[in-house]
Amino acid sequence: MGKRFVIIGGDAAGMSAASQIRRLQADAEILAFEKGSTLSYAQCGLPYLIGGVVSEAKNLIARTPEEFRDKYRIEVFIRHEVTKILPEENAVIVKNLAEGSEEGFSYDTLLIATGGHAIFPQWEGRDLEGVFPLKDMDDALRIQGWVQKKNVARVVIVGGGYIGLEMAEAFHHLKKEVAVLDLAPQVAGTFDPELAQLAQQELEQNGIRVALNEEVVALRGENGRVTGVETKTGFYPADLVLVAIGILPNSELAKDAGIELGVKGAIRVDDQMRTNRSNIYAAGDCAVHYHRVKGTEDYIPLGTTANKQGRIAGTNMGGGEAHFAGVVGSAIMKVLNVAMGRTGLSEREAKQLNIPYEVVSIRSRDHAGYYPNGERLHLKLLYHKENRKLLGAQIVGKHGVDKRIDVIATALYAGLTIDQLQELDLSYAPPFNSVWDPVQQASTVAGRS
Amino acid sequence: MGKRFVIIGGDAAGMSAASQIRRLQADAEILAFEKGSTLSYAQCGLPYLIGGVVSEAKNLIARTPEEFRDKYRIEVFIRHEVTKILPEENAVIVKNLAEGSEEGFSYDTLLIATGGHAIFPQWEGRDLEGVFPLKDMDDALRIQGWVQKKNVARVVIVGGGYIGLEMAEAFHHLKKEVAVLDLAPQVAGTFDPELAQLAQQELEQNGIRVALNEEVVALRGENGRVTGVETKTGFYPADLVLVAIGILPNSELAKDAGIELGVKGAIRVDDQMRTNRSNIYAAGDCAVHYHRVKGTEDYIPLGTTANKQGRIAGTNMGGGEAHFAGVVGSAIMKVLNVAMGRTGLSEREAKQLNIPYEVVSIRSRDHAGYYPNGERLHLKLLYHKENRKLLGAQIVGKHGVDKRIDVIATALYAGLTIDQLQELDLSYAPPFNSVWDPVQQASTVAGRS
Repeated sequence: MGKRFVIIGGDAAGMSAASQIRRLQADAEILAFEKGSTLSYAQCGLPYLIGGVVSEAKNLIARTPEEFRDKYRIEVFIRHEVTKILPEENAVIVKNLAEGSEEGFSYDTLLIATGGHAIFPQWEGRDLEGVFPLKDMDDALRIQGWVQKKNVARVVIVGGGYIGLEMAEAFHHLKKEVAVLDLAPQVAGTFDPELAQLAQQELEQNGIRVALNEEVVALRGENGRVTGVETKTGFYPADLVLVAIGILPNSELAKDAGIELGVKGAIRVDDQMRTNRSNIYAAGDCAVHYHRVKGTEDYIPLGTTANKQGRIAGTNMGGGEAHFAGVVGSAIMKVLNVAMGRTGLSEREAKQLNIPYEVVSIRSRDHAGYYPNGERLHLKLLYHKENRKLLGAQIVGKHGVDKRIDVIATALYAGLTIDQLQELDLSYAPPFNSVWDPVQQASTVAGRS
Repeated sequence: MGKRFVIIGGDAAGMSAASQIRRLQADAEILAFEKGSTLSYAQCGLPYLIGGVVSEAKNLIARTPEEFRDKYRIEVFIRHEVTKILPEENAVIVKNLAEGSEEGFSYDTLLIATGGHAIFPQWEGRDLEGVFPLKDMDDALRIQGWVQKKNVARVVIVGGGYIGLEMAEAFHHLKKEVAVLDLAPQVAGTFDPELAQLAQQELEQNGIRVALNEEVVALRGENGRVTGVETKTGFYPADLVLVAIGILPNSELAKDAGIELGVKGAIRVDDQMRTNRSNIYAAGDCAVHYHRVKGTEDYIPLGTTANKQGRIAGTNMGGGEAHFAGVVGSAIMKVLNVAMGRTGLSEREAKQLNIPYEVVSIRSRDHAGYYPNGERLHLKLLYHKENRKLLGAQIVGKHGVDKRIDVIATALYAGLTIDQLQELDLSYAPPFNSVWDPVQQASTVAGRS
């Protein structure tokens, strides 16, 4: 028997790491403890499950505990919560949630992949029935059950970020009357206001109410069941309230074990996913994420990053060597018929970081103007005022947003300048593009400023 | 009055250069001579004009001679052919094709942007009515006229490259019976056979006949009008024959003036688009194109490159400084419902160049498997066996091909390795991608080989 690897958390980061360790060490003993009842599923698919676009929960599940056991010899314990890490003893205490019993397990190397949790303030009425966060499969199934059984007509979503807006679409798809409340003067807070405005338009044109600058005071109910959201300025009746105001890392366990935390209380890791204890690693939504454009650690919990960090942690834990190159801040969401994509820094972020920047904003089309069904694209690019390196992009439109964001994300990774975008040899035929791609058109405009 | 700039050719390269010169030199005298009757139009749109997807020829025309004159003070002479360059005298001889008169014009700086011509072998019967090349607007209008007036039922296309296959779709769209003949054992010659096979399947499934290894012997006709194509092994009846077997540079004028030619007889230029005569530049389909991956000059005539080279030539002619970074060999075409994209080197090219390479081929999907309407993507990536740098990619599928080709084209430009693809922070949401993009999946497979 080889070394024993213990993994806390059975989702993207944890199971990516486990699989990677198995690839590198045939004789390793690999134990994974998952507090919930579902392993390794597509969290980003939850809004589409609730909205009925994905028909069954099992479609989101990549692998079952049995598959991990039989195919990879990874012992996965679901409904098992790690309650304590004992770094001096190289051991964890695990509670079997079904039986209530506790047991200790020693490890040679430990991975903390405990994920994150939805922020859910101590508002009055937060425990009313019909009030939900959305972070995991269990949340999604609870929301689904409520919608199916409780004759829900009106939904209020608190928070207009990625999950809030994807869920606005989901409930709209279910023919509910939807209102989105945001504390900020805009929705889609990772976008600058003029682009966020386009998401708001799309919501409102589809009959979804958007209320900005709305600070929640309390959730109100009758007979233990929610009836609405009270804000400083009004009252929004609701049969269901979704609270989607952000994610924070599950880092208590690490903190209690004396492991160093970083930005937003996420577990601080080096580029090999190692914490300040050399045989303890962390990855995914519980850990910090190095931001390649900012050059600092950041906290941007996303499935793509969790998968990458998990794989890298597993490689290093298994005796290989891999380094996390960092995120560049890429994200995309579908808001009804519009795609909202971003990468790098927004103007707001550049300002906060005191980075001298220039902006170029253009309107273009996703493909040749003379070819049918062209759709408008709104592009905003930021670049460094002195060295002209790309800093970020935000793109909104009905079609072709993801392509341009990914081209710029690749350019950001490689450290290209705004001017080098013009030199790219992008593929062209009239159904797919213009002879100068919109990102190159923006580059040209920047060259003339 | 400033310097006099003479430009031979009024299409993408020529007019891009002219506009750029005007930007840099307010007092320059700029004369452009165009042999044909249309300026600055979208050649790549011609198959869609003929197929009826683009309704009118004027939709393809970016600017008229009057606009160039009035807005940019560029004097454009259509139906004026430059018949001789006199480099010792810094002058050109221009023939007014309408009147037949000739006149000399001196220049301080000259741009040759004479474009290319369709290869049209001296086959017996090539002068029959109903036999056409397709390179310019006049060709397209002749083809359109023939289709409209001559009760065309059967079309034979000689050549299964980009134009051949786009025209197969166009004629199919017009409800014609279409056969595509190719001398090679495959269509889509810039793709490796297993991917080209997918284009062939798509053609055949839509009732388009594909005949490979077919060498044309002669075009046959009656009463001066084409009736079919005779090959070494058979006869293909036709009311219209399109010959689309490639493009060669229009470099005779340059050659006669003692200007150095390069690969395929294209005009040799440095990275500032300067020929071996310091005040004579060349750009676009008449010039060579530096290939960034091959590290040598190449000849890949495309509208994107003509625009880039034209702009660069204009910048340098106008006293600025710009350098052509080179092409990486990106191209895409729509073949009915399938997109065929490529960038960098094919396996055939890598072999020819004796570059030690590895291949990774995968089948994936354009977005998350659980999200509806996912489409299969076939990806083939090549990378250098020793330094693992990306060498090229070919991707075929119904959706999302252009995005991945452009990501890899950007990565090729930046000199990334196959392994670095895994590090890219690409945008992810279920409607747009998988948590690992297909190009990253391919990278993972390569890492395990």
